Amino acid sequence: MAVNSPDRTRRSERSRTAILTATRELIAEVGYAKLTIEAIAARAGVGKQTIYRWWSSKGAVVFDSILALSEQTDGEVALPDTGDLAADLKTVLRATAAEFADPAFEAPIRALNMELIADPELAELYREKLEKPVTEAKKRRLRAAREAGQLAADTDLDLFLEFLYAPLTQRWLLRSGPLDDAFADALVDATLRAFP
Amino acid sequence: MAVNSPDRTRRSERSRTAILTATRELIAEVGYAKLTIEAIAARAGVGKQTIYRWWSSKGAVVFDSILALSEQTDGEVALPDTGDLAADLKTVLRATAAEFADPAFEAPIRALNMELIADPELAELYREKLEKPVTEAKKRRLRAAREAGQLAADTDLDLFLEFLYAPLTQRWLLRSGPLDDAFADALVDATLRAFP
Repeated sequence: MAVNSPDRTRRSERSRTAILTATRELIAEVGYAKLTIEAIAARAGVGKQTIYRWWSSKGAVVFDSILALSEQTDGEVALPDTGDLAADLKTVLRATAAEFADPAFEAPIRALNMELIADPELAELYREKLEKPVTEAKKRRLRAAREAGQLAADTDLDLFLEFLYAPLTQRWLLRSGPLDDAFADALVDATLRAFP
Repeated sequence: MAVNSPDRTRRSERSRTAILTATRELIAEVGYAKLTIEAIAARAGVGKQTIYRWWSSKGAVVFDSILALSEQTDGEVALPDTGDLAADLKTVLRATAAEFADPAFEAPIRALNMELIADPELAELYREKLEKPVTEAKKRRLRAAREAGQLAADTDLDLFLEFLYAPLTQRWLLRSGPLDDAFADALVDATLRAFP
């Protein structure tokens, strides 16, 4: 049996991509609660068994469908560095707020977050695999600011990032206010005042 | 038929209380995902039909089970006011962090939050019914501080509260760090620096 023949590998890779794409599309269309393995299989043009062979649960497919997005970006993440920390953070936060205000973008991430809130091990895996490289990129920008004397030498960068992002995450998850430029700017200004 | 006889009303009230208590207990024991109407009925000593007569879904029972907790506290919520805003906020934040670090307390609220994240209408209802009185109590304390000259006259109190609480909510929901006194104090100090 030529299990690992090039054709077979290529077909598998195509199926895998189709499944992950279908998962993200369907979450955006019907929401996580109504997402079914049947619907993913139908949309991806594969059998249900193909999905169950690779993933143990709906949550696992959703997780990988998000992970695949970040693999597409490929290579190192970097924040803008014009030398003006406030301006650079506003650029990033405005873009993030706009993404989370976009239903097609936010729906799969919302579904993933519900999985993460329910499942401590998945949350740990997520932090390790997906969040850490992004957090490191953010910290590199903050360290550059520290070296330029724009942040105190003893600034707790993890706490800084929690302050900067948590209000945005909360507004988004609970839909408790607008995710606009004014909010993004207010978060940056308040965080920079909090960590002078 | 004496549908509304005092005995019948009393029995209904007893069943309702038993169902809501069973719901909170079971969420803490087995988690939201594994919570079933069957198990709630068995624990409460009522028939499944009794539950379905009053609630349309598991999420609705969970919501009411949390709402019932705040009805028990009864009367107006108030924050401590010793005249020292930082000290008072630390008292409150430390207590909140300790509550969310307690599995028996946090499990039903975690389950509720997953419902709120999934369901915008429930989130709005929650804000109106449960969160608003608490938010108002917090704002009264902040207004007193403003009048005492401890906060600027133009402080955005909603944004102040988002900054103060969102990092705690995020750490709790994603289990991304310790919920201890040091964290509570750091949140208060940073928020007061951000809103001088």
